[in-house]
Amino acid sequence: MPHATRRAALRATLRDRELDALLVTNLLNIRYLTGFTGSNAALLVSAESDAASVFCTDGRYLTQAERQVPDLERVIDRPCDLALAQRAHKDGNRRAGFESNHVTVEGLDALADAAEDVELVRAPGLVEQLRLVKDDAEVEALRMACAAADRALASLIEHGGLRAGRTEREIARELENRMLDHGAAGPSFESIVATGANSAVPHHRPTDAVVHAGDFVKLDFGALVDGYHSDMTRTLVVGQAADWQRELYELVAASQAAGRHALAAGAAVSDVDRAAREVIEQAGYGEQFLHGLGHGVGLQIHEAPALSKVGDGTLLPGMTVTVEPGVYLAGKGGVRIEDTLVVRQGAPELLTLTTKELVVV
Amino acid sequence: MPHATRRAALRATLRDRELDALLVTNLLNIRYLTGFTGSNAALLVSAESDAASVFCTDGRYLTQAERQVPDLERVIDRPCDLALAQRAHKDGNRRAGFESNHVTVEGLDALADAAEDVELVRAPGLVEQLRLVKDDAEVEALRMACAAADRALASLIEHGGLRAGRTEREIARELENRMLDHGAAGPSFESIVATGANSAVPHHRPTDAVVHAGDFVKLDFGALVDGYHSDMTRTLVVGQAADWQRELYELVAASQAAGRHALAAGAAVSDVDRAAREVIEQAGYGEQFLHGLGHGVGLQIHEAPALSKVGDGTLLPGMTVTVEPGVYLAGKGGVRIEDTLVVRQGAPELLTLTTKELVVV
Repeated sequence: MPHATRRAALRATLRDRELDALLVTNLLNIRYLTGFTGSNAALLVSAESDAASVFCTDGRYLTQAERQVPDLERVIDRPCDLALAQRAHKDGNRRAGFESNHVTVEGLDALADAAEDVELVRAPGLVEQLRLVKDDAEVEALRMACAAADRALASLIEHGGLRAGRTEREIARELENRMLDHGAAGPSFESIVATGANSAVPHHRPTDAVVHAGDFVKLDFGALVDGYHSDMTRTLVVGQAADWQRELYELVAASQAAGRHALAAGAAVSDVDRAAREVIEQAGYGEQFLHGLGHGVGLQIHEAPALSKVGDGTLLPGMTVTVEPGVYLAGKGGVRIEDTLVVRQGAPELLTLTTKELVVV
Repeated sequence: MPHATRRAALRATLRDRELDALLVTNLLNIRYLTGFTGSNAALLVSAESDAASVFCTDGRYLTQAERQVPDLERVIDRPCDLALAQRAHKDGNRRAGFESNHVTVEGLDALADAAEDVELVRAPGLVEQLRLVKDDAEVEALRMACAAADRALASLIEHGGLRAGRTEREIARELENRMLDHGAAGPSFESIVATGANSAVPHHRPTDAVVHAGDFVKLDFGALVDGYHSDMTRTLVVGQAADWQRELYELVAASQAAGRHALAAGAAVSDVDRAAREVIEQAGYGEQFLHGLGHGVGLQIHEAPALSKVGDGTLLPGMTVTVEPGVYLAGKGGVRIEDTLVVRQGAPELLTLTTKELVVV
């Protein structure tokens, strides 16, 4: 039971901080700790035991909660956060943590009223801290999400989905449908399909722009499986690749490889960024690499750690991150190559398996 | 320019509260006030004028912001909320409101540091209050979103998409694709397709359950157009309708008609709920109508006002709401009929035009 293990890890943190309990109100954190996928819930994790912990949702999710959260006491009430703040009081908690990075200023007033004489203690990011390092169940979900994206892109290409005359919007839609065919619950974010000069816009949204022979087509997309988000970018050429396109592609590919090679447990995140960025800077394109090297992925498409110049901290085994350098030549075209990987002792584990050789379709 | 008009309305509220400015950090509220659709922004609305107001986003959205927010000073910085809190200080604001229903407890600390000696005043829900009554541009977007849903359902039925042997999941996917064909940017929420006994589950998620002849099929879905969410439920019968199905359907249809007839400017929201609920209670099914009668729709799929037994307040012309009674017979089947409507003086304007006669496919 990964959820019970995660709650046990949280419990150790609570004891360190001399908290009797943590009131978890962020839905992703609740999902992480219980498996519950509904849209309304709260969770009171006791520092003592699961037996003293309580889950709350509303009547719409009665049967779903029985199935997804069989191992905790369940309360059906509304609003859930206030119900569990009252419960903390009834259970005799003296000091209860709350997620001060999620609870709003108005929300805290309401919690404090409900909790009566319980001292509500700021406890920002305790669950997010645990979520930094993924357990096996999480890596497996990410692996499946990455596989759905790999297969969708392969079948898109195989069925001629990338060809001159099609619009960015048509391609995005086919790609998303093919991810559903391969086990995704949905796309993990709004797909980027950018052709020709649009490929030089880092976060281009698909338009009715038409693919022409000789275009770069940049595809940045991912699949959602069991709540976990994959993230991959590939840049292809349609028809025939010009010399400048091959050169730009090889440069970004070399930078991306340098970033992957630097990605190891114990490395400073800023060093990983630097390893990839230096390759591009030395080629004179530093100004055209407009963003950080990558970011954590998991229950959110963007989460800690950030791999960037100014990022703090070092990598731990089990972190899942993207490595995605890009060079964007305004008005002409751009290349980004992005993988999702798991940090390991030694070489990272690659989850997005689509080739990074230049593909010409 | 609806956005300038909306900012002018907000400005009047700020003056009433003796605020020099409002720091808007909620992205939907920023979209409402500026038209900006990116994922990172903040807005400082001066009580004085648009000329003294400032919009902030990050470098990814430089060109998009030029296009979408041409009429305000634009700052490119990160994090945006802190940049504009500093700006409030530099501009000599004494009292600046902040969205205390959105800003977190930790977030307020950071804002207060950045704002230095500016007094940060709680100002919860000021923009949401304006958003309650939709202007013509908003109603037009909702009209288009409802039309996309109407057309998608019509073409689904016309092409035999609802037939014995198909799964709920297949139908949901076809319906969502057909909404895209008819101008939607996407579904406005996760579509509900529930067949047979599943139709008795109010918020059923599509499964691999197969449609059988004689089933109720309940479809609750909507389209997203320009950020606005349509919401419609229809319940059909596949093959031939049994007497109990016709009776149940007519009951819910009568309740829904009563709710629509009670929907008028000046009516108390609880009276509208009661008008529909009485019809069902008098038939002895009050316990099987498990939820409120409806909710506001707009930039969110669920927003104020709530039409429910315990709801407060009265309807104003230009509010857009759903009316959606349902009766759910556990293990057997259920019927819900839902429209999206605009409150007017006199009869409401119906935006979802699909027939509410019982359709047998």
